[in-house]
Amino acid sequence: MTITNEPITAKAHTNIALVKYWGKADEQLILPTNDSISMTLDHFYSTTSVQFDPVLSTDEIILDGIKLPADGQQRIRQFMDLVRQLAGITTFAHIETSNHVPTTAGLASSASGFAALAGAAAKAAGLNLNRRELSRLARRGSGSATRSIYGGFVQWHAGHDDETSFAEPLEEKVDWPIRMIAIVVSRDEKKVGSRHGMKQSQTSPFFKDWVKQSNADIEPMKTALLKKDINRVGAIAEHNAMCMHATTLSAMPPFTYFNGDTIEAMQLITDLRNNGLNCYYTMDAGPNVKVICLENEVEPILDHLRPVFGDAHLVVAKPGSGLTYL
Amino acid sequence: MTITNEPITAKAHTNIALVKYWGKADEQLILPTNDSISMTLDHFYSTTSVQFDPVLSTDEIILDGIKLPADGQQRIRQFMDLVRQLAGITTFAHIETSNHVPTTAGLASSASGFAALAGAAAKAAGLNLNRRELSRLARRGSGSATRSIYGGFVQWHAGHDDETSFAEPLEEKVDWPIRMIAIVVSRDEKKVGSRHGMKQSQTSPFFKDWVKQSNADIEPMKTALLKKDINRVGAIAEHNAMCMHATTLSAMPPFTYFNGDTIEAMQLITDLRNNGLNCYYTMDAGPNVKVICLENEVEPILDHLRPVFGDAHLVVAKPGSGLTYL
Repeated sequence: MTITNEPITAKAHTNIALVKYWGKADEQLILPTNDSISMTLDHFYSTTSVQFDPVLSTDEIILDGIKLPADGQQRIRQFMDLVRQLAGITTFAHIETSNHVPTTAGLASSASGFAALAGAAAKAAGLNLNRRELSRLARRGSGSATRSIYGGFVQWHAGHDDETSFAEPLEEKVDWPIRMIAIVVSRDEKKVGSRHGMKQSQTSPFFKDWVKQSNADIEPMKTALLKKDINRVGAIAEHNAMCMHATTLSAMPPFTYFNGDTIEAMQLITDLRNNGLNCYYTMDAGPNVKVICLENEVEPILDHLRPVFGDAHLVVAKPGSGLTYL
Repeated sequence: MTITNEPITAKAHTNIALVKYWGKADEQLILPTNDSISMTLDHFYSTTSVQFDPVLSTDEIILDGIKLPADGQQRIRQFMDLVRQLAGITTFAHIETSNHVPTTAGLASSASGFAALAGAAAKAAGLNLNRRELSRLARRGSGSATRSIYGGFVQWHAGHDDETSFAEPLEEKVDWPIRMIAIVVSRDEKKVGSRHGMKQSQTSPFFKDWVKQSNADIEPMKTALLKKDINRVGAIAEHNAMCMHATTLSAMPPFTYFNGDTIEAMQLITDLRNNGLNCYYTMDAGPNVKVICLENEVEPILDHLRPVFGDAHLVVAKPGSGLTYL
């Protein structure tokens, strides 16, 4: 293994879970409490360059053109320490990340960010990792990043240790026109970060059954994806997401990621479905709502969403690709 | 037992559960899945007059001055059939009910309504029932009515049959200044009635643990009420209510009683608490929020609620009394 002197640039897309990751069995290794399934999105991605440089006395981290303050760097430094440990090196690096996750979309960028960083840092450090190994490495930065190594539909096997907890593709080139419409109901920063939120959710009396339910959702979701059955995919994803959010409501003390617009969006999608459109909602650790539907119903759905949320707050995404090098 | 010819008028107050009734173990007898604890409110009540009249060929039901249409009468007729069966009579009755639950308050009137009806109908039919028997009778009209026979803090024992499922008072004359502020965020009729809603919630994977949690909340709530510990009472009540609402979110398909204003009210109360005011929220099968607090903090809390919800949408209630005859 030899360090590359040239900067290595990798690109990874974000992903939205259809069966959610919400809870850690091991905080240190980031082992999840249950399997999860996601769809990688084409529209939202991060590019990250890593260049090791012997003259540096610490990692230098630039995020969207701005040098990160010390307290924002800790997670990335810890991750780089892990890469150095794997490569048997002590050199620090220049790291430059651009998030092409429009800030107005308010979607998580840590999945794409850590997937791209894992790809770039590993290669720059001279590690020759296959995709499964990259998936395991990305996991150590951010749980959901483990899935962003792959495109299309992806399953993260919870596993029971560092070796056995990795993602693998279910269908990398998706050949049916599934779509997600992101409804950006708020640009506010999350009040409860997902790391803290999923820990707080473990105080819910329902947490154990949340894990059971999610594991039970895996096979039906795989079957529904295989059958290209939008109504089964949507119904399972919607129910799974609401079970996740039920663990925040029932935490001690209770909390929620919903705001008023979130509820309005949920009701609107339910009403549209009751009126014959095949659409379902899912939500993560924030107030934004993502609508699962088929391409041919995107326009009629948008027609109903635009008057309420405004065109600028609606982004349509299709299945995207996995990690690539630029 | 002899029928009274005079109209008998009874008055009962509504109640708000601190540990919720949400799920039936027996639909016919209205046996709940778990024990519950409530506070009867002074501000909201129903008065009901019942007069049996041999010339009638059916029950004549007047609600707030308006003759009820046939489809709105079924629950009341079925209840009257039960009273007739107990009294061994076949005579129909004039029934007149006034709900002094301001419609703007949007609070459930079936608890006070059926408690008052049970009291008036039983006496008019010549039945000489004690309060426990009245509590069991009221239960057959509406589950929460079983608690409105008593004032102050009341426990409903779930029981396992008609005999064993009844309420009893924990503290009828409450000698500490606990208050509830009703925030009336919507006057819309409920989209999902509570009978249907609690049935739908039983499809939640968390329902079994909801029952367990509620039963586990009973003793700590009784202790907190005994100790007049507003923060324990509030924290248990808030968590219990959110566990109940988590069973709606996690139902298949998911649904919610929250609207945008509900979420705003929850966040506002949480913020006020984080800023030192001892206030907690609870919610039932509708979007309105009730704030649990002490009298000396009612005004500072109202000062924060008024600019958001408007003075006309805020009603302060204290512990009220049980069933009385007028």
